[in-house]
Amino acid sequence: MNRVRIPILKLYDYLLVSIQWELDDQTALQFQEDLLNKIHETSASGVVIDLTSIDFIDSFIAKVLGDVIGMSKLMGAKVVLTGIQPAVAITLVELGISLNDVLTALDLEKGLEKLQQELED
Amino acid sequence: MNRVRIPILKLYDYLLVSIQWELDDQTALQFQEDLLNKIHETSASGVVIDLTSIDFIDSFIAKVLGDVIGMSKLMGAKVVLTGIQPAVAITLVELGISLNDVLTALDLEKGLEKLQQELED
Repeated sequence: MNRVRIPILKLYDYLLVSIQWELDDQTALQFQEDLLNKIHETSASGVVIDLTSIDFIDSFIAKVLGDVIGMSKLMGAKVVLTGIQPAVAITLVELGISLNDVLTALDLEKGLEKLQQELED
Repeated sequence: MNRVRIPILKLYDYLLVSIQWELDDQTALQFQEDLLNKIHETSASGVVIDLTSIDFIDSFIAKVLGDVIGMSKLMGAKVVLTGIQPAVAITLVELGISLNDVLTALDLEKGLEKLQQELED
């Protein structure tokens, strides 16, 4: 069967990712690797990760998400998380995932706008 | 395990899909259903399907692709295919998939621009 991977779209200077189902651990790690490679490959200056369709996140996935944001920053790409649902917000905070200085927005469109503002500053 | 589905991103008035691995038949049919539902749900006026990462397409997938384009049109959404590689172009033509009046473009950005032009007319 196909290996499950999360598609990463390049749009102008940004990468767009929409996570539309619950990730298993392997897929999450693969995503981490794929995203960092894609940032390197495309020299993207920003990434929008849309979680609108995700209504639950476990501690492992939350950690991977926190890690991938930190790693992307190290590589010079700003990350915006969009569409965080209440239960996901609760999990992230309760687990103490350090998303302090993470940009967030309501949806993909607003996420892109936020990136543009941030990068213009 | 997770069921494999192709994420469909909504950006403004458009839907973006990037197919980044070879589809099996079940995934292709699921994609067809998901895309049509999403067009209905979002009233999207255009769809960009990016095939940049696909270097091979079999006859079943080619047919599903042709079908989904026709169905989307019926629902009022224009479809642009982007990033068609040589081997994929050959397969589509050899199989006689009716992509005569399908819009194509080099990449996702150009696909979005083409949709915008078409919809302004």
